[in-house]
Amino acid sequence: MKALIYQNANTLDDFAIKLAEVTDPTMNDNDLLIRVKSFSVNPGDTKIRRAVSAPEDGHIILGWEFSGIVIKTGKKTKGFTVGDEVYGVGDVSRDGNYAELVSVDYRVVAHKPASLQFYEAAAVPLTSLTALGAILDENFQPYPNVSSILIIGGSGGTGSIAIQYLKAQTNLKIIATAYGKESEEWVKSMGADFVVDHFGDVKQQLQDIGFHQVDQIFSTSHTAEHMHWILKVLSPYGHLSLIESPEALSQITPNTFAFSIHWQMIFTRILKEYHPELQSKFLNQLSSLIDSGKIKTTAKTRLIGLSEETIKHAHTLIESGKSIGKIVIDDIE
Amino acid sequence: MKALIYQNANTLDDFAIKLAEVTDPTMNDNDLLIRVKSFSVNPGDTKIRRAVSAPEDGHIILGWEFSGIVIKTGKKTKGFTVGDEVYGVGDVSRDGNYAELVSVDYRVVAHKPASLQFYEAAAVPLTSLTALGAILDENFQPYPNVSSILIIGGSGGTGSIAIQYLKAQTNLKIIATAYGKESEEWVKSMGADFVVDHFGDVKQQLQDIGFHQVDQIFSTSHTAEHMHWILKVLSPYGHLSLIESPEALSQITPNTFAFSIHWQMIFTRILKEYHPELQSKFLNQLSSLIDSGKIKTTAKTRLIGLSEETIKHAHTLIESGKSIGKIVIDDIE
Repeated sequence: MKALIYQNANTLDDFAIKLAEVTDPTMNDNDLLIRVKSFSVNPGDTKIRRAVSAPEDGHIILGWEFSGIVIKTGKKTKGFTVGDEVYGVGDVSRDGNYAELVSVDYRVVAHKPASLQFYEAAAVPLTSLTALGAILDENFQPYPNVSSILIIGGSGGTGSIAIQYLKAQTNLKIIATAYGKESEEWVKSMGADFVVDHFGDVKQQLQDIGFHQVDQIFSTSHTAEHMHWILKVLSPYGHLSLIESPEALSQITPNTFAFSIHWQMIFTRILKEYHPELQSKFLNQLSSLIDSGKIKTTAKTRLIGLSEETIKHAHTLIESGKSIGKIVIDDIE
Repeated sequence: MKALIYQNANTLDDFAIKLAEVTDPTMNDNDLLIRVKSFSVNPGDTKIRRAVSAPEDGHIILGWEFSGIVIKTGKKTKGFTVGDEVYGVGDVSRDGNYAELVSVDYRVVAHKPASLQFYEAAAVPLTSLTALGAILDENFQPYPNVSSILIIGGSGGTGSIAIQYLKAQTNLKIIATAYGKESEEWVKSMGADFVVDHFGDVKQQLQDIGFHQVDQIFSTSHTAEHMHWILKVLSPYGHLSLIESPEALSQITPNTFAFSIHWQMIFTRILKEYHPELQSKFLNQLSSLIDSGKIKTTAKTRLIGLSEETIKHAHTLIESGKSIGKIVIDDIE
């Protein structure tokens, strides 16, 4: 098959991902062999490219968020047949999906929303599983005793899905942070009940809209910069959900009141064999929510074809830090 | 009343706590006025003494863990009458109980275990509420899906109470860390099912006793030193409970798998008016467990009388870092 590969960690200036002919993926009994139709390019991909090299004579195939068509089912797979249109997040310990074919454990694969094109579907699973893994409990249920949630960075991909899901599925009061008019309007269109400026006096802004404190906070980015007010507005025994910035946690002082921190990492279920089937089940629920119009894709930039040009463009956009929404490579063949 | 007071933050070498005659405590409608019979001296007391000075012309009275007798009830108190023998943890934002009298909100006071002497009871509430606030949820219930717990520093005051409570009230497999024969025997006598050496290869020791990983970890001290193995033995979606060492949290890396951190601070309920009545309710349950022989006090060192000598001795013992069990000042009058 054709795949985008590299051998040694490389920078944008010395970008080294090349299109090459490689052997088809090996399949385990639990695997589906999937013909990739579209895939998302994520910040995690660029971080691995900059930091990780392949063993001698080996290569690395990045990319772990895809949509495609099942072309072969492993002996122990259930619920899928050849021809099924699917989407999902793969396994970071195996070859990724910057390729024509990818092997993925069926327990983390789901049926693609019928109402979405492949490129629109490819943008959904990773941010959704990150967002909802962070704000829901290990069984994908909201925490008890929570009636309000503040989402820091509500206009980003993860924040946007979080707001849409909470609006569709819960009665929580949703407050999103945003900066600037465009971002503010975006989070409102996603379903936020209230918007605050995360560079302003957040405590005061919350009081102005009637919140003495909030029961849960989901920080999607720049947690270290916001930590100084996070612990002032979080309720006692409140929940702080994090997906990055561990250095922020060192700012917690011993006289900070009791609270919980939830640390989310997207590949936990498959890497640790921790109920991976819940990941598939949850993505199937998400497909229903999408098909009923309650959640929209966040695909924004669509680049055509498996090529060195498209992948370099995608990595450049991500490393600029200025791209909005998800970047998807479409029409793999 | 007589009280032990100081004005300026002071070191052991320049120890400045003096016995003095001061005005009796003021009472709010929610307060009980309590004649102090015994009180514990805790590490938190020594930290405040070293760091915090009183306003000009003012003084500081330390100590927030006591046993005593109710001598007056505020207008809005319920469930207590004059003469009741009580114990509890006070409110760090008010004068403490290094004194003959203390005023405490009735919602955090409980009836003293009848089977204990005052000095034995005074050793119980703070470590218990710290330990159980850390390992149980906000309603004092065990976390769901947890079948094993590892307690780091099992032979300390907080660890000892945690082991005893879990043994008496749950079916969890309890693994305690200890160092040396005496400490190992102590945690077994508290009820630990297994003991491991926290300076050894903890992952290997756990495997040797049949645990691939544990669902919950309660780190009672030196978390930063142990963080390197904590995240290797904690189950995915596991719970880490902490009462100190925020700097350890900065060692969490973005590719650490999903888990939760529970941060416990003893005074949260009363300072934040967050269901303080649950604290009283829980201490009353603890009294029943003590009176039925399921939990023992950890009082070890009993010093007699409210005097400069006893309090200096107590602070010296604590700052040596070598005292075992709790230090109680008894026979206040």
